Formats: sequence, C-alpha cells, structure tokens
Amino acid sequence: MYTYEYLHRFTHDFFSGMGCSEDDSILIADIFLAAELRGIPSHGMIRIRDYYQLWKAGRINVEPNVSVVHETPSTAVVDGDGAVGMVAASRSMEIAIAKASQVGSGWVSTRGSNHFGIAGYYALMALKHDMIGIALTNANPLVAPTFSVSRMMGTNPIAVAIPAGNQPPFVADFATTPIARGKLAVAEKKGEKVAIGFIQDKEGKPTDDPAILKSGGSMLTLGGDYEHGSHKGYCLSAIVDIFCAVFSGANFGPFVPPSVAYLPVLDKKVGEGTGHFFGAMRIDAFQPADDFKAKMDEWIMTFRSSKPAAGRDRVLIPGDPEREKESRLREEGISLLPAVAKEMKEIAKELHIEFEIRD
Amino acid sequence: MYTYEYLHRFTHDFFSGMGCSEDDSILIADIFLAAELRGIPSHGMIRIRDYYQLWKAGRINVEPNVSVVHETPSTAVVDGDGAVGMVAASRSMEIAIAKASQVGSGWVSTRGSNHFGIAGYYALMALKHDMIGIALTNANPLVAPTFSVSRMMGTNPIAVAIPAGNQPPFVADFATTPIARGKLAVAEKKGEKVAIGFIQDKEGKPTDDPAILKSGGSMLTLGGDYEHGSHKGYCLSAIVDIFCAVFSGANFGPFVPPSVAYLPVLDKKVGEGTGHFFGAMRIDAFQPADDFKAKMDEWIMTFRSSKPAAGRDRVLIPGDPEREKESRLREEGISLLPAVAKEMKEIAKELHIEFEIRD
Repeated sequence: MYTYEYLHRFTHDFFSGMGCSEDDSILIADIFLAAELRGIPSHGMIRIRDYYQLWKAGRINVEPNVSVVHETPSTAVVDGDGAVGMVAASRSMEIAIAKASQVGSGWVSTRGSNHFGIAGYYALMALKHDMIGIALTNANPLVAPTFSVSRMMGTNPIAVAIPAGNQPPFVADFATTPIARGKLAVAEKKGEKVAIGFIQDKEGKPTDDPAILKSGGSMLTLGGDYEHGSHKGYCLSAIVDIFCAVFSGANFGPFVPPSVAYLPVLDKKVGEGTGHFFGAMRIDAFQPADDFKAKMDEWIMTFRSSKPAAGRDRVLIPGDPEREKESRLREEGISLLPAVAKEMKEIAKELHIEFEIRD
Repeated sequence: MYTYEYLHRFTHDFFSGMGCSEDDSILIADIFLAAELRGIPSHGMIRIRDYYQLWKAGRINVEPNVSVVHETPSTAVVDGDGAVGMVAASRSMEIAIAKASQVGSGWVSTRGSNHFGIAGYYALMALKHDMIGIALTNANPLVAPTFSVSRMMGTNPIAVAIPAGNQPPFVADFATTPIARGKLAVAEKKGEKVAIGFIQDKEGKPTDDPAILKSGGSMLTLGGDYEHGSHKGYCLSAIVDIFCAVFSGANFGPFVPPSVAYLPVLDKKVGEGTGHFFGAMRIDAFQPADDFKAKMDEWIMTFRSSKPAAGRDRVLIPGDPEREKESRLREEGISLLPAVAKEMKEIAKELHIEFEIRD
C-alpha cells in the first residue's frame, strides 16, 4: 500500500527526471494521482511506463510551447507542441475558463497532444470558478463503427462537471463504449470470457473472447449491437473525434497515434498528435449563481430519492462512486498491481530516482 | 399517399386556425414535415392531435412573447412564454447563431416551451451559416436511472450537425435510450414482444413485454443494463435534462409536463414548461472555413470506406439514412397511418379546414 504523497512524489520525480519543469511535474503528478484516487487505475501509474517509452522514442516534448494558434472571444485552437497530454490539456482548459470569464463560455480544441489521463480532471477544474466543465479526447483506434469491422475510433470519453450548492457536484466521466479497454485486458489475462455486446470478431460476429482483439477483432460502441442502439454510441464517439481532431487539426479516427511506444506510428498523418476538446460555461451566464446551485441541489436530491430497483439499496448521482472511492483511498492508501510496481522500480533505477516495492 | 405540399398546407392551416401568425404557421409546418420526410413520423403528423388537445386545454400560447431573459455575449436564457415548441426553439436557435456570429459560439437554454418536434431540425439550421449546430430537449418522464425503477427522465435526444465541403454534412440525431418510445407503442399494438434491454418491470427486472409501461414499468437508458453501460446512458440523459431545465429554469426530470393533454399536469412545478438547449459554433472559430470543410470531407470519406461487417454492404455516416429517406419521400410522397389520417380529418372538420383521407 502506498500513500498519496509517496506516489505523487515518485511521479513528480519521474517527469522531472525526464526534463519537465517543476510546475509541470507537479501538475502531471496531480493528474496521475487523481486517476488512482478516483478508482480509474487504468489511467494512473500503469501509464508511467508508456510515457517513459514514448519519451525514450523521442515522441514527448518536455519543454513545449503550448500556444493559441487561432481564436475568437469564445473559442480557441491550442497547439500542444508534443507536450505531455496533461500539460497541453490543463493549459487548454485554463484558456477555456478564461474565455468563459470574459464572454460567458469558452471552447478550446487542442492538437499536438498526447494521452491526457482522466477526462474528468479537466471538467472538474471548472467547478472552483462556478463554471460547468466539459472535456473530451480522442484515443488509439480500437472501436468499430456500427456495421463495420474496422478499428476506426478510440473509446473517446466524455466528461461533464456541474456545480451544485450544498450537494456534491454532478460529475459524469465515461467512455463511449460499454466497457473500458482495461477491463477486457484483465479478463484476457485471467483467461476469462466477457459478456456479449462488448466485442466482435474480424467478420463482425459477436464474441465473448477478449483475446479476439489480437486477431482482428474490435470493440463495439455504447449500445453493443444495432438493435440496442450501437449507432448512437457510434454517433457519440464520432462527435468526440471530430470536436477533438477536425476542429483542432489533430489526427482523427484511425490515424490517432498510439499512446504506447510498442505500437508503430502510422506513416500517414492527417494532423498533429492526439486531439482534445474543452468547454467551460459560467453558471451565472444562465442563472444567478445562487439560484443555479439551489436548483442543482434540488435536481440531485430528486434523483437521489428515486426508488431503487429490487436488490439495490440506492440510486447514484454521477460522481458519487468516484468521490466515495477517493475519500476511502486517501485514508487507506493506494495499492498497485505487482506488475505495475515492478515496472516502476525498473524505471526508477534507470532514472536514478527512489521507488520501493510494497505489498 | 400525400405530397409534401398538401400536408404542409394542412399543417399551416391547422396552426393558423388555432390563431398562430402566418410566419409561425409556416415555420411549424416546415418542422412537422421535416420529421415526416426524415423518416421520424413519431414526431410528425401524429402530433397534430396532441397539439390540438393542448390548445383546447388552454396550454398553448399562440401569440407568445419569446424573449431573452438573461444573457452574456455567448449565452442566453430564453423564455418561450408557452409557445408552440417549434416557435420557441427556432427563435432560440437563431439567437445562438447570432451570438456565434459575434463571438464564435452561442449557447441558449430555453424554458416555457412545449414539444419541439425533431431535435435535428434546429441543429441543421446552423449549417447554412457555416456553423456546427447542437440541439437538446428534455421530455415526458418514461425512463429510469440505472439501479432505479422510477420514471425520472425523457428519451432526451441529442442532435449535432457538422458542415462538410463536397460531402453531405454529418448529422447525428438520437435519443439517449436504446429504442424510441414510438417503436414500443407499435410493438404493443401488434401484441409483439421486444428484445431484452429496452424496458424493465416495476421491480426493475428485464422484460420483453412492451405493455409493461402501463403497469409501472419503465424504459432503460442507452446501454440497457449496468453491465453494458446503462449508467453512461443515464449520464447522457441527465446532462441533457440539466442543460435544458436547470440552466433555463424549466421543469426538470419527473416534473416535465406531458406533451399530450390526456395526461394530467402535476401539481408540483419546479420551473416553466419544457426545456431545450441549443448551441452554434462557427467553423471558422476553429479553422479557416475551407480547411475545416476539406478536413471534414476527409473524415467522412475515411469512415465511409471502412470495411463492412459480414452481411453488410456499407458503413453509414450519421445523417445518411435520413437524407436518403428524405430524397425518396419527396419524390414518392408521404403515407400516413390510417388512424392518424382519421384524427386529422376529425380535427379538420372542427376547425373548418380541408383534409382528405387517402390510401
């Protein structure tokens, strides 16, 4: 078990060791640890090795010039200049927030970035400004459009955070696929089958074998099959891809560069790096802030008091599970998979930083 | 079979007969007919009787003062003043477009409205201005949050239209449930079962019986069950509800007034009427317009040329099915269900307007 502080210090030292500035190293560590605390370890310490390998392959710019390349009062395109995704993303969200302060809302599409961790982090940044926050990103192609067997899209997540008053905020952060890629990988390692509706084989036939992704299979969009609305999940994933990449001039769809170094970068590029999209809207751009918060409290209490299904003890509000997890893990500490801790130990040795394997 | 012009003239005369202005009557007819042409008859002529009954019940304001009640350079709240939904919605979208012209993007949340027909119509309004269009609405509560059996949300649709160059535009318009309410009603009338994953009984157990909605059952969100990501559909539907109703001060969730007069309006109100949300973003707020369109063409051609699954002849781009339907129906004409034509004939008689029943 590790404390938050221990893993934060390690992550800071790791990025600092790669050459990132002090401020950037702290920021990146904040975001890596937010993934662990919120119960999304697939976007936490397990990604340290990916970033190390990308850096060794010369695909990370540790001294980036993240800059606005096009703008209007309420919109901007930001060039991430090959930065660590967390750096490009948080500067982009800050720009969206600054624009919202000026004209009510701000919308930023970002190119030339890399894997940015959990989308929810950037949406959450808006809350302390009494703003609604939105964050989207495209990702490695693993997912097939409805009626197709080609891997054309990532699990392209959507995060939306909305402030409340006395209630905790509404925080949705979800992939546009039925299941996360990481859960399929775990099932595959354990030799387990998965439910029908997550993946298909190279012909497009439903399968329960997660290993199929290694032999031409692909992930399905939210909805699963056409009868159950997979075309709606396809629409969502496509909208995320277009907002992130066509708006900004990043690589879209099948051309998104892999976030791991062991997969080759395609010869064909249609833009720069990975793309993100961020939005911020002042709540007082719609209602006086106190009225908005009181109404949001009422919304949350209404939904929380809806009747649970048989065998369920309560109805959740988006954000509840992650917040409860965070409060528990801050107290109990964070455990790492042995394989992840081992990777971190090896990297620590190469970079001459300290890391201890613990149970 | 009816021509577009015949049904447009009837719809115009019907709303004009209720007291709507000439301009409003034409606009409303445009939107009713857009639903028929785009293959969404559940939002077309079948709704004439609902509007007639709402009007007779004194729940429609035919001379509304649709007005901005709160604004910033990029946002506004519009009060629909009890207007026909199409009138409140199209004026709101015009305001979003005007704001986008000025500051790059415009975002409008609307209260005091009624059923606005197809969301796609308003998203499509943005295209001729070289803008991306977004339209959301909340609706009668029929849908249960994940882990709940309470009917808390509507089928809350999302529409997004994105301009292209030589390719037709990308137009997504979909409910945040696996299946439309109308399709369940049709199955019920035919005495047919439906697939598992659409509905649950009053305990929360999955069922294939569409009649269950009359005995405490509820619709499920996109994803179907928790294992297949229904909590993501719940997030989407909740976001639509909050953007439409908490932002504007409309009724949210279970308090949305029914769009049919035979259901009672609840004693408890938490706001005014039904809520909508509209967005417009200039494409040149992100890229020079020609570059944006060329890139969007490339996105569309890339996805259209992905490999079809076995037994499928092609991969569709969102908007393809509706556009193809529209082009066919403009040529072949529009057929109405006999029960719908009969209702229209009766209403025509009461309002002293002309309507002929045809095969």
